[in-house]
Amino acid sequence: MSAERTSTHAPPHAGPASGPPEDDPALALHRGGKLEVVGTVAVRDADGLALAYTPGVARVCQAIAADRRLAYDYTWKSHTVAVVTDGSAVLGLGDIGPEAALPVMEGKALLFKQFGGVDAVPVCLDCRDVDDLVATVARLAPGFGGINLEDISAPRCFEVERRLQERLDVPVFHDDQHGTAIVVLAALRNALRVTGQALRDVRVVLSGAGAAGVAVARILLAAGAVDVVVADSRGVLFPDRGDLTDVKRQIADVTNPAGLQGTLADALDGADVFVGLSGGTVPEDAVAAMASGSIVFGLANPDPEVHPEVARRHARVVATGRSDFPNQINNVLAFPGVFRGALEVRASRVTEGMKLAAAEALADVVADDLSADHVIPSPFDARVAPTVARAVARAAEADGVAGA
Amino acid sequence: MSAERTSTHAPPHAGPASGPPEDDPALALHRGGKLEVVGTVAVRDADGLALAYTPGVARVCQAIAADRRLAYDYTWKSHTVAVVTDGSAVLGLGDIGPEAALPVMEGKALLFKQFGGVDAVPVCLDCRDVDDLVATVARLAPGFGGINLEDISAPRCFEVERRLQERLDVPVFHDDQHGTAIVVLAALRNALRVTGQALRDVRVVLSGAGAAGVAVARILLAAGAVDVVVADSRGVLFPDRGDLTDVKRQIADVTNPAGLQGTLADALDGADVFVGLSGGTVPEDAVAAMASGSIVFGLANPDPEVHPEVARRHARVVATGRSDFPNQINNVLAFPGVFRGALEVRASRVTEGMKLAAAEALADVVADDLSADHVIPSPFDARVAPTVARAVARAAEADGVAGA
Repeated sequence: MSAERTSTHAPPHAGPASGPPEDDPALALHRGGKLEVVGTVAVRDADGLALAYTPGVARVCQAIAADRRLAYDYTWKSHTVAVVTDGSAVLGLGDIGPEAALPVMEGKALLFKQFGGVDAVPVCLDCRDVDDLVATVARLAPGFGGINLEDISAPRCFEVERRLQERLDVPVFHDDQHGTAIVVLAALRNALRVTGQALRDVRVVLSGAGAAGVAVARILLAAGAVDVVVADSRGVLFPDRGDLTDVKRQIADVTNPAGLQGTLADALDGADVFVGLSGGTVPEDAVAAMASGSIVFGLANPDPEVHPEVARRHARVVATGRSDFPNQINNVLAFPGVFRGALEVRASRVTEGMKLAAAEALADVVADDLSADHVIPSPFDARVAPTVARAVARAAEADGVAGA
Repeated sequence: MSAERTSTHAPPHAGPASGPPEDDPALALHRGGKLEVVGTVAVRDADGLALAYTPGVARVCQAIAADRRLAYDYTWKSHTVAVVTDGSAVLGLGDIGPEAALPVMEGKALLFKQFGGVDAVPVCLDCRDVDDLVATVARLAPGFGGINLEDISAPRCFEVERRLQERLDVPVFHDDQHGTAIVVLAALRNALRVTGQALRDVRVVLSGAGAAGVAVARILLAAGAVDVVVADSRGVLFPDRGDLTDVKRQIADVTNPAGLQGTLADALDGADVFVGLSGGTVPEDAVAAMASGSIVFGLANPDPEVHPEVARRHARVVATGRSDFPNQINNVLAFPGVFRGALEVRASRVTEGMKLAAAEALADVVADDLSADHVIPSPFDARVAPTVARAVARAAEADGVAGA
């Protein structure tokens, strides 16, 4: 098997297993969970206890009490983040609650460690109100060097992130937004190299105006795109559309320079790039009506908006979220390196410049291996996280947010 | 050195160390903190990623969404507790805040793992209000199999614990209260074996009516003590004393059957047992005035209420919180085994019966090695946590709180 238990955390009460039958290898792999908390110090005798715990630890506490920033030196804060969810928008499963979200958060923590050397703690919160979420995360933040928000439904996710960023002096990063945005931008940069186009010259049509769609639109504009059109399930966003939320109106105000109205299919007519972040489906004739040599990213999982075999009939570059087709757009290409880099320089936040630098560094890992079927590195390419981390750390320093 | 770094979590930004000079071995040992979060599953390729993370993990999430209790089977919940503090009463340092409390919570987590095989996550909260503390801990509880409250100042700690116990279906255990109470009761049981007395026949005088004093008074009464007298800094507690908090009045109502008034020294006149949990000092002539063959536990750290060399001139059995004298009363003798046992049977709470069983099991570990200088096992006695865990698990089953 390609995922193996490296440590037996045999449930101590190892009687007959409860739960559904485990012919499912995913259930079998998950028994006992996927994480443990391990000491990096071993206490061998009374003197050791007196140094790692009382009374010796009191001197460490006093040093931090005198200068709070020393928590970065003498605790796990410099290498540890909280992975926080309320379980309201988990994968494609929707609102399944905090307990059921925990396997995803453990998986995220596993990947943080394996790919980025970052220690991550799942925190699954039993609350939904924005004020409560903000207050709770702010209260538990002192022991962490960063906050990764995860699987919180839109539009609450935008306000939760914004208010926490204003309140805290550590990076607060909603991965469903910015992780996705960074990887999409990296893949699109390389896809445009394949097609020989410039980002500022192409029309990009995004399907989906949730967390990922909004963030992708924003990063594309920040990276120099001019003609970005966003559609939700009711069609193209434009400022005068009567049914927009605040966030969608903000997006409508800065996108769609041609003033398009109508359906997603209307917008795709003649477009150069499609990025699907919605989970809907796009009919083949809409893909066929795109400009020649088009780029199609169908990122819904497990069922892309356009099946890659269909897309290939019309498009030059095709990417999905799936591992069984070329060009897998996977957030694990971004979040371990982003937090690793941010933690290395003790960044107080993740700036737009850090995200753009991450995308550029990620795209550049592909280098000479670039082809239509290889616009993004494999998640198992060991160069990815260190390269992204270096770029993020440098950008943090350039943006003046390092050394909090 | 007797405490050694087993894993280098070299701060990645390993430039010149910031912070105070590290001629202090405690500071040197603490660089980078004392914990890491490690995967128990390794993801080796795309198939592995698809099993441990998306899309495979979705099936695990769905199983838990259908039956919340399956979180015990398929996540870390069955073996993981949160160690929660607000940093308001840390060691003898007082209110030093959440960041400065983190080294103690990391130490606690280290001991949880090393001694009890329990995974523990430090959670240092930036809030003081009782309502806020209760709400915050309740919200973050779904991902944990238990809550260890730590270093929260009295009297807030009593209400925080009580309300969380009412609200949550996992054990909530304020270690400063109950861990101390369990170890004191165990040591006292053995000390009384040495002196040949019965708990119901002796007068026990407690100095200190904070978290530990209140909990020790309660467990002694539950264990069968009749004549327990508690004194705070203003003297003996009795019901008509005008300046008592609610909790102190509750204690006054169930202790001091002789109706004593006056100072701690007055109460010690003729008493059989002294337990110091206050940090004050007791003059030698007050110890000398105790009954012959007395038992003196001076547990303030690092300066016992009565220095053990002074106490030995008058008392038959002497214990302290220090490792450099015989009979060290240390909470690490209790909390790893208590939570291990509670987690093993998925207990919904820690009952009085579980605490009494823990104390009895801990006392019995000493067995034939009992002497005046050996009334309590060493924290490094490998039998301690498994023995306590077994007794706690059995008591949970007997009390009907197992199998939540």
